[in-house]
Amino acid sequence: MASTEHSLTLDNLNPNVKVLEYAVRGPLVIRAGEIEKELEKGTQKPFDEVIKANIGDCHAMGQQPITFIRQVLALVTYPKLLSDPQFPEDAKERAKTILAGCRGGSVGSYTDSPGIEVIRKHVAQYIAERDGIPADWQNVVIGAGASDAIKNVLKLLICDINGKRPGVMIPIPQYPLYSATLAEFNIQQVGYYLNESTNWGLDISELKRAIEEARKTCYPRAIVVINPGNPTGQVLSRENIEAIIKFAHKEKLFIFADEVYQHNIYAPGSKFFSFKKVLVEMGEPYSKMELASFMSCSKGYMGECGLRGGYAEVLNMEPQVKAMYLKAISAMLCPTVLGQACLDIIMNPPRKGEPSYELFQKEKNGVLESLKLRAKMVADTFNSMEGFSCNEVQGAMYAFPQIKLPSKAIEAAKKAGKAPDVFYAFELLENTGICIVPGSGFGQVPGTYHFRTTILPQPDKLKAMLDNFARFHKQFLSKYS
Amino acid sequence: MASTEHSLTLDNLNPNVKVLEYAVRGPLVIRAGEIEKELEKGTQKPFDEVIKANIGDCHAMGQQPITFIRQVLALVTYPKLLSDPQFPEDAKERAKTILAGCRGGSVGSYTDSPGIEVIRKHVAQYIAERDGIPADWQNVVIGAGASDAIKNVLKLLICDINGKRPGVMIPIPQYPLYSATLAEFNIQQVGYYLNESTNWGLDISELKRAIEEARKTCYPRAIVVINPGNPTGQVLSRENIEAIIKFAHKEKLFIFADEVYQHNIYAPGSKFFSFKKVLVEMGEPYSKMELASFMSCSKGYMGECGLRGGYAEVLNMEPQVKAMYLKAISAMLCPTVLGQACLDIIMNPPRKGEPSYELFQKEKNGVLESLKLRAKMVADTFNSMEGFSCNEVQGAMYAFPQIKLPSKAIEAAKKAGKAPDVFYAFELLENTGICIVPGSGFGQVPGTYHFRTTILPQPDKLKAMLDNFARFHKQFLSKYS
Repeated sequence: MASTEHSLTLDNLNPNVKVLEYAVRGPLVIRAGEIEKELEKGTQKPFDEVIKANIGDCHAMGQQPITFIRQVLALVTYPKLLSDPQFPEDAKERAKTILAGCRGGSVGSYTDSPGIEVIRKHVAQYIAERDGIPADWQNVVIGAGASDAIKNVLKLLICDINGKRPGVMIPIPQYPLYSATLAEFNIQQVGYYLNESTNWGLDISELKRAIEEARKTCYPRAIVVINPGNPTGQVLSRENIEAIIKFAHKEKLFIFADEVYQHNIYAPGSKFFSFKKVLVEMGEPYSKMELASFMSCSKGYMGECGLRGGYAEVLNMEPQVKAMYLKAISAMLCPTVLGQACLDIIMNPPRKGEPSYELFQKEKNGVLESLKLRAKMVADTFNSMEGFSCNEVQGAMYAFPQIKLPSKAIEAAKKAGKAPDVFYAFELLENTGICIVPGSGFGQVPGTYHFRTTILPQPDKLKAMLDNFARFHKQFLSKYS
Repeated sequence: MASTEHSLTLDNLNPNVKVLEYAVRGPLVIRAGEIEKELEKGTQKPFDEVIKANIGDCHAMGQQPITFIRQVLALVTYPKLLSDPQFPEDAKERAKTILAGCRGGSVGSYTDSPGIEVIRKHVAQYIAERDGIPADWQNVVIGAGASDAIKNVLKLLICDINGKRPGVMIPIPQYPLYSATLAEFNIQQVGYYLNESTNWGLDISELKRAIEEARKTCYPRAIVVINPGNPTGQVLSRENIEAIIKFAHKEKLFIFADEVYQHNIYAPGSKFFSFKKVLVEMGEPYSKMELASFMSCSKGYMGECGLRGGYAEVLNMEPQVKAMYLKAISAMLCPTVLGQACLDIIMNPPRKGEPSYELFQKEKNGVLESLKLRAKMVADTFNSMEGFSCNEVQGAMYAFPQIKLPSKAIEAAKKAGKAPDVFYAFELLENTGICIVPGSGFGQVPGTYHFRTTILPQPDKLKAMLDNFARFHKQFLSKYS
């Protein structure tokens, strides 16, 4: 059928959708899926399986769910189990509290659009305990994952100002949810480079450069900071956060603090400080600034990506704007109740003295300790490979090494019509089954090449993956040198 | 704090968010929530509880979940239960199939953005059995509820054409997801009136009038049809659907068939025909038309609103456009896996001979039979009240009666700064605790007044509600006559 028979064609498709890119699920990942199908059909390859190191998908890489989370979810889903002695009392108590917050006592009912009140209260309590600063549950808005929560706040900024389109500052490299969403919303992406030579630190002079340049073409309204960093794995110091807050205040920017990796801190000496804590402790005028902080069930020690739970804590939003924000989310009815329930458990985990406390701690610490070892293993391995340099993975779930590509490889990439890092990643995939994401999907200083790999394969598999990677790299270098 | 201290104010807020309205969760519902809190605190009212007849929230109104659905969900969530003899074998078999489709065997993993392959295949099989026409699983895109699925397709249409902004035809009265989403997307709403005097039938002459008028100010690209109707409860005849398809073909419109109430057919003589079935059976050129049909876990006999599961079946989409559509949804990663799992069970329910078949059928038919009785009870009661006229509730979950308001009441409303139907609804709420949605939230012929009430309260409560309603209405009439 010729394209002209269609009412909806590339020519009259939403132009923002056309330019949107989401590298974490881009062409490389599509090819990885094809290879998986080929392997299933028995096609011979130099490897037995595809290793999806492209996405922070914990359980897919063999991480086991936290027992307590799943027990409570089973109880709220099928309340007949509340009388089953195989479930511990604290799980039952949590489940009853959640069900009491559900209309008709069923997780099948709609909730208020910002989420179930008792769960929002548990989120506020978690934040208060984390920061040592009170939190108001009415500032907590639950979403279907942090991505959903982020989009719902970003959406408010779509408004031309003084004849200029809005701009939002994002780190480069960045997590492509931001570039994709800004493209979809036709908001100008104002990239500021992280400093690779100071372990992806955030230089205020670079923020100034970026905003001044951007002001020529747009009206910058907000700054996104990802801490711990994705894809870069740095953990910001308190001093760095203070400087960013001062910058944002001076430039009157709404701060988006993407803090979904707040449990994932590995490096000795690194510590997580929330933007909320720092901003409030700095006192006025900073403590009155507009801030949205985002958290998720998908990362940390729980890794429940598929359940889609997350929240925004929104501080100091103008009250009429907040009413509009809450109105805007209402048309989507409510975030998934089981995602909300998962969030509830993470916010209100078993306490000392409760029957599930020890198992919960053991499982939680087991995951985090193992991730810490893997973070080091990955960075160390890359740093031992010719042409690679990799910053310490202080936090989050990724390494983002730089790789020097031989000029012949760059030429070969050009011939193949691919960016050099994309070319490298495709070669790696076809030869080893390892699926990574090229740096161009996140942004990088022009002329440099990187890629992101997760640290999530289980230790044995990760070691095998890194061995294969090193072997491939040697062959690649000899082929193109 | 003065508004000028904020970076984000009403003045520079997304203008589309400002105009967006979602009546089903509007001011009346907010007031209902306040009244609930007042009752909790012991405030004396002429009633004991708020009855939320404003929203199709089945479990909240006392409908019990289908046992089999919840059993399978508990099993996939906490797979240790797979060895528990209290769960039937067919539930275990369904759970194992779903888990085999999840990466790492966990519902905590991300899935492909359009959903788990095996679930998409079950959806296709359900559609094929429903229509007697083959369905391609690759045309099935799962979403976090039908609302999410609808928005993801509507979004593609945001594109000015020939210097005009896009327009989408929607029924008036309509379900406010459409008006809210079109406002958010800055797509022009092109309303076509349903004909109340022919039980909310769809007149082709009215479609022609609406599109011709709209062409002056926008470029109409699509038509939304809700069948069975929300808020109007009609079930379209096959002939009516054929005429709509011919109209859409002539005008080159993308058809959005909102068919989430396809299980909710009550009236003798009414039968559900999917747009897909009719369109395919009409043969070319109609069978080549672009169509998206939407379905949900939230309605029907299951009423699992809180789990957020639904799908779009997208037919004849231009292949490059389809690739863009799939790319656009990828940035939101994936719909909730437990919502997908719920959808799977509805698409692949227990079959004859399986251990859960009889209980499942009993529960399913019990809900549908009871809704059928309630549909009749509601329409009959309203028709027995002075000044009311109510069409037969042939399907869906709502009645949308018309009410003649005395001129004194209209004056009183004007004085109170409210639309007359909104005024009536507030009076009803404050005096009886019954929360309905005024017709102006859905659209109505100017000068007529309606409201939407669900038929969802359980029979005893529904009867009491209707009695209170009738009593209130008498008092209202005597007050304003």
